[in-house]
Amino acid sequence: MMKLTVLGSTGSIGTQTLEVVRERGDISIEALGAGRNIALLEEQIRCFRPRLACVADERAAKQLKVAVADTETKILSGSAGMEELAADPASDTVVAAIVGIAGLASSLAAVKAGKRLALANKETLVAAGDLVRSALTKSGGELIPVDSEHSAVFQCLEAIGTERRRTELKRIILTASGGPFAGKTRAELAEITPEQALRHPNWDMGAKITIDSATLMNKGLEVLEASQLFDTKTEKIDVLVHRQSIVHSMIELTDGAVLAQLGVPDMKLPIQYALTYPDRLPMQGNTLDLATVGTLTFEKPDTSTFRCLALAYEAAEKGHTMPCVLNGANEAAVALFLQKKIRFLEIGELIERTMEAHKPIRNPGLEDILEADCWARETVRHLQQMA
Amino acid sequence: MMKLTVLGSTGSIGTQTLEVVRERGDISIEALGAGRNIALLEEQIRCFRPRLACVADERAAKQLKVAVADTETKILSGSAGMEELAADPASDTVVAAIVGIAGLASSLAAVKAGKRLALANKETLVAAGDLVRSALTKSGGELIPVDSEHSAVFQCLEAIGTERRRTELKRIILTASGGPFAGKTRAELAEITPEQALRHPNWDMGAKITIDSATLMNKGLEVLEASQLFDTKTEKIDVLVHRQSIVHSMIELTDGAVLAQLGVPDMKLPIQYALTYPDRLPMQGNTLDLATVGTLTFEKPDTSTFRCLALAYEAAEKGHTMPCVLNGANEAAVALFLQKKIRFLEIGELIERTMEAHKPIRNPGLEDILEADCWARETVRHLQQMA
Repeated sequence: MMKLTVLGSTGSIGTQTLEVVRERGDISIEALGAGRNIALLEEQIRCFRPRLACVADERAAKQLKVAVADTETKILSGSAGMEELAADPASDTVVAAIVGIAGLASSLAAVKAGKRLALANKETLVAAGDLVRSALTKSGGELIPVDSEHSAVFQCLEAIGTERRRTELKRIILTASGGPFAGKTRAELAEITPEQALRHPNWDMGAKITIDSATLMNKGLEVLEASQLFDTKTEKIDVLVHRQSIVHSMIELTDGAVLAQLGVPDMKLPIQYALTYPDRLPMQGNTLDLATVGTLTFEKPDTSTFRCLALAYEAAEKGHTMPCVLNGANEAAVALFLQKKIRFLEIGELIERTMEAHKPIRNPGLEDILEADCWARETVRHLQQMA
Repeated sequence: MMKLTVLGSTGSIGTQTLEVVRERGDISIEALGAGRNIALLEEQIRCFRPRLACVADERAAKQLKVAVADTETKILSGSAGMEELAADPASDTVVAAIVGIAGLASSLAAVKAGKRLALANKETLVAAGDLVRSALTKSGGELIPVDSEHSAVFQCLEAIGTERRRTELKRIILTASGGPFAGKTRAELAEITPEQALRHPNWDMGAKITIDSATLMNKGLEVLEASQLFDTKTEKIDVLVHRQSIVHSMIELTDGAVLAQLGVPDMKLPIQYALTYPDRLPMQGNTLDLATVGTLTFEKPDTSTFRCLALAYEAAEKGHTMPCVLNGANEAAVALFLQKKIRFLEIGELIERTMEAHKPIRNPGLEDILEADCWARETVRHLQQMA
């Protein structure tokens, strides 16, 4: 029986992971970690009876301890607690579904402990890809992507196997829904409100990632993540706007053959695949009927309107701490937008100005990365207050 | 260096195979077989200098012998000569690109001799699938499909590997261009001339297969072939009309994931893959640009208008010699149509009436199959003369 830890269990990927666990019945939940939603975490504890749980927020952790005093679950707290969960020897697999840079340290701890890491946290590889990859090599751990695009690429790459990847993989093509504003001009984007940006056409996701999807920064972060995951330069990673979100991504091989993974938009499929890989197990209710879908469209992304995607490629080119700064600046800017302190187009502008002000630190360690992240956030807030 | 025999070297697949050979430069042509186009075969002999060549037509063989008397190439003739070519110990790989049932005996000879058979001849598996499969098991030979649809399925299946096929493959989805008449009514089809039927929208193929494409019988034969190739019941093989011929086919897995192989319509890719499998080698000039393609469409085939596809499923259900009779009746009916002796819709009608008159022979040997094929052709001609 698989022994699973879910970090970020109260979020979108976390709750869907627990639905998969409930449907399967052959996975035991060892530990659950959440940020601050202790009402839902308490429910999850009572349902799945993990040995350990952790709340990032110290005060909320104290409240939860009281609330679940009648259970056998031991409650930890803070980021140290989250890292303890990630490395706990009782689990063999860790789902990393904490949103943002907050998920980095625990993901890294799981990798160092030699776990299979089912990775839904983009920032881990965007900000600390080299660090994570060298830890993987040392520990013999495994990294399986959960993101639908990276899972699609991972599934397609199975057709050529790991050894042929270096010689036979020509290009990775990540598909993008284009978000709710594909086709809009910069003048139209200037007026976008958070409420409008939060309405994603195809996927039901958290708020931060939904805004990232509207700015195309989500796709930019995915390009950076794919580059690390599949050891491929970003110039060999293309983005194609595909509004129906049916083709989840593609690979192009050296002979011109393109392999694609398709499916209805349902995160439970890549979540389950990351858990059961290399096996696939039956899943109900998600059969793709292409005759009913009818039409699939593909178009080049408009990177002069959606600057965030272009900025991600620029960050990849600069390398070192620049992708981390791009990500930190984006998190801060998206928070300001959700608080209605800046307008939609200012997200990209603040990120760009922050990147311009940053001097990349070569071969950064975890401390350098967290510091660059903090610096980026502060710089964004500072620039905004100056405006 | 790969040692290759090409059966049907003057046809569409044959000439494209030789183009691949010329572009690669690491394949030696051991033998070439053709039906009657000795002018082209002579050119090929002078270019590729095979040890052996064979002409199916005895008289043409004699003429060729005189014409190439100055070369080192030994000329064989007839179907016995073609079988000798197929089994020749000097070759390790045989491309079977003879059109129609005429290709069966030589394909079977290659399989029995333990070769890698790059199979472009549908009829081999349609008419004699069980026979070929048991010969494969005995000889340890290899069967790699060349047809774009089957190659696509084969390429996708690499992602799960042979062992998982039985448990993880849920459905095969063969795509069909729909031919030049997709969307037409039976009243409109009644007036179709051979000239109209020979204009295929996407692929440049021989005359017989182009008519099969217009009737959808081509897809019916592919369903039967896929059933044998991938050891899958026809009820798990669907056909989806996809007019752009970009998605060459798909597989659906047990968890709902769909894997597809895409590419520009260029037979050289599946031909080369069948030769170099499991490796892929670079190929120029066939990069798929989906943003330029723009739109891919999918729809259910209209089997009440295009009866031939429904007849193929019926033949699969009846089994034994029925698929062979379907194929033989189709070859005879297509020939009559090309000779303007029958009208377009009569192709399906004659096949249906021939199938109704046939009593399947259980577990047929090669003789039974060839006899059933002859019977079907005669029955078609007889029915036509009676009309």
